[in-house]
Amino acid sequence: MLTDFEEKELEEISAKEGVSVERLKRLLSAGRVVIPRNARRRSVVLKAIGDMMSTKVNVNVGTSKDYVNVDEEVEKAKVAVRFGADTVMDLSTGGDLDEVRRRVLRELRVPVGTVPIYQAALSCGGAIVEMSPDDMFNAIERHARDGVDFMTVHAGVTLSAVERLKMSDRILNVVSRGGAFLVAWMLHNERENPLYEDFEYLIEIAKEYEVTLSLGDGLRPGCISDASDRAKYMEVITLGELVKKCREAGVQAIVEGPGHVPADEIEACVKTIKNLTDFAPLYLLGPLPTDIAPGYDHVVAAVGGAIAAMQGADFLCMVSPSEHLALPSIEDIREGTTVTKIAAHIADTVRRGQRSRAREKDRAMAFARKMLDWETQFNIAIDSERARKIKEGRPSESDACSICGDLCAIKIVNAFLNKFNK
Amino acid sequence: MLTDFEEKELEEISAKEGVSVERLKRLLSAGRVVIPRNARRRSVVLKAIGDMMSTKVNVNVGTSKDYVNVDEEVEKAKVAVRFGADTVMDLSTGGDLDEVRRRVLRELRVPVGTVPIYQAALSCGGAIVEMSPDDMFNAIERHARDGVDFMTVHAGVTLSAVERLKMSDRILNVVSRGGAFLVAWMLHNERENPLYEDFEYLIEIAKEYEVTLSLGDGLRPGCISDASDRAKYMEVITLGELVKKCREAGVQAIVEGPGHVPADEIEACVKTIKNLTDFAPLYLLGPLPTDIAPGYDHVVAAVGGAIAAMQGADFLCMVSPSEHLALPSIEDIREGTTVTKIAAHIADTVRRGQRSRAREKDRAMAFARKMLDWETQFNIAIDSERARKIKEGRPSESDACSICGDLCAIKIVNAFLNKFNK
Repeated sequence: MLTDFEEKELEEISAKEGVSVERLKRLLSAGRVVIPRNARRRSVVLKAIGDMMSTKVNVNVGTSKDYVNVDEEVEKAKVAVRFGADTVMDLSTGGDLDEVRRRVLRELRVPVGTVPIYQAALSCGGAIVEMSPDDMFNAIERHARDGVDFMTVHAGVTLSAVERLKMSDRILNVVSRGGAFLVAWMLHNERENPLYEDFEYLIEIAKEYEVTLSLGDGLRPGCISDASDRAKYMEVITLGELVKKCREAGVQAIVEGPGHVPADEIEACVKTIKNLTDFAPLYLLGPLPTDIAPGYDHVVAAVGGAIAAMQGADFLCMVSPSEHLALPSIEDIREGTTVTKIAAHIADTVRRGQRSRAREKDRAMAFARKMLDWETQFNIAIDSERARKIKEGRPSESDACSICGDLCAIKIVNAFLNKFNK
Repeated sequence: MLTDFEEKELEEISAKEGVSVERLKRLLSAGRVVIPRNARRRSVVLKAIGDMMSTKVNVNVGTSKDYVNVDEEVEKAKVAVRFGADTVMDLSTGGDLDEVRRRVLRELRVPVGTVPIYQAALSCGGAIVEMSPDDMFNAIERHARDGVDFMTVHAGVTLSAVERLKMSDRILNVVSRGGAFLVAWMLHNERENPLYEDFEYLIEIAKEYEVTLSLGDGLRPGCISDASDRAKYMEVITLGELVKKCREAGVQAIVEGPGHVPADEIEACVKTIKNLTDFAPLYLLGPLPTDIAPGYDHVVAAVGGAIAAMQGADFLCMVSPSEHLALPSIEDIREGTTVTKIAAHIADTVRRGQRSRAREKDRAMAFARKMLDWETQFNIAIDSERARKIKEGRPSESDACSICGDLCAIKIVNAFLNKFNK
């Protein structure tokens, strides 16, 4: 995989991540770090995802059957990048899927991901169980040819895992859309998952187009009661085996993880998946440590995501305020992206390889606060615009803020402590 | 302290918290749980705060020098209670302080807290260093007489702790307003903190009016770089000694904690404070695990607060989106309160004594999701109104939501798995 990158490119990443080029090369060779880039999309901004790298953030956009507005989805993608998304996935399932994907690829410079099985399923008019294995692989190759940098393939949804699912007492059996398509297909056709059975073919396509495979967790739990069961870990074991095949073939691989996990199981979950998949970069949706806050799932995901990335997760998928309720609005994308960036930064302040660099920003903010230097505070803020708007919406007559005015603790103590504390 | 409560009242709390009356009595006797109620405010709703109880949420309201609108602050208090605040603190520092406090006490039924040193300082026209010890104790007694159920007293800001502060290399020396008043007073007057020196007098007042003392952390760190230093823990040691004095005198005591703490120090921070203060109920402001997200400090506090309450913190103070920037608006109070309730619930799902009960709600939500039963989902949601608004703002033509429509994983799998999985 190293051969895909020029020395100069690796130096740039090394500088950006604060990790030496030597170390970066070792991590890339070992598959502990990936840099998604399709062979046909050479100008993409490189993002290193994995061990010792800063925590990365993905944002999903895409049409649905109910809402097809390509311009709006492209705008969402741009807003996401503006507010700090490292990558964007187009999960469209409504309208002309080729058009959305191609526009997103054309108009963005960040790595773009997709889930080709959606298009495969829709190409059969939604009669999912009638997809042929060729439909699946054709969609994958079509996306690869278009320049998609990474794609989710639910190759770990095997008959063996589905057996465990049948025996489980899950409340919500399958909540992954791609996972659901494949489970339905396998049960109906009484056949093994083609993406698993023909994984070598998948690897061939990935190798040809230099696509990073994101090994999807089709059996991820859909509520905290269902977390950490045998069906899930059966799938993770398979994903670990597939990671090994990818590495042997020189294909970059990411592993996807849950989902919904109680707060005190997140550490074990992250560490176990990391171990079972030989420390492949771990990409999480959430995890959500409670199910009862629809409307605020971005905040719930920030709590779970920060804990997970502290423990070793590398890549957080934005969860929007409308998760579980509706297709997100542009404002939801902004809010969700910002909050996910905050979770990523919180994790980076304690993360191996990132800790000191991440904390420089927090130190600079603390100094700016000591000096009541508002411009610097706004500049450092993750969302400068929002911070400025709040401050200026309720200004103070003093040089402090309107919570305390002249009774500001910092002002008072600066005056009295300055003599011995500079 | 047990004598303050009737058997019937303890039974009600026992039922509400899912902890036996016997156990509740033991925890109250040991001072590990407090139930704030002023002798003059018998009709207050009882809230048990501490070990094995559900995590409680406080919301601060109050005028500032820049914004004096008593009606708005009373409205904020009501909104806070409507969105789940267990207690409210009036931290007013602008206008007629007596009026705000008395209106809040009159119009709310939840326990109300204050920080009397603000009024003491303002009664000297803001010339803080000219307060007399009598000014401080008079303000405390005035608040107690008005019926305040709990009050913050920064009695741990001792000369010994201030010495450690001088020797420290903190960026932000003191960020607690009350702490700053006392540090300034002590440095100027070269005298010990009267609240510490005359703690017995404080206890007398607390005993007479049955006020719960919330032992303030005047030296709490103001940025993650300053967390966990000797000045802070010197104060905590003193607070532990004061807790002991309170317990000996039959006065209920809470300990306040930081503030700003890196994510990987929160567990140690909570456990150490709990140990040093003989497991007094721990009341946290935040903690904030990053300083660079002004405008989103409610989310930052949710991350820190959830981790802290998982580890044993008992009482979370709401942080609003305008923290560090401006006096909060009514909308900020709603948003901040809801998000803090979410953090408290996340902690309760893994908290000793609360785990199973808290998770019943998550299980019920999961079942409602399986059934695509939206009304039940809205009813269980922490903020039903918000959830409904989002769902109805972008409806689906299907019975699922507009993210997936008929491609909903739950719908697909329900259809195929129903035969063997009920």
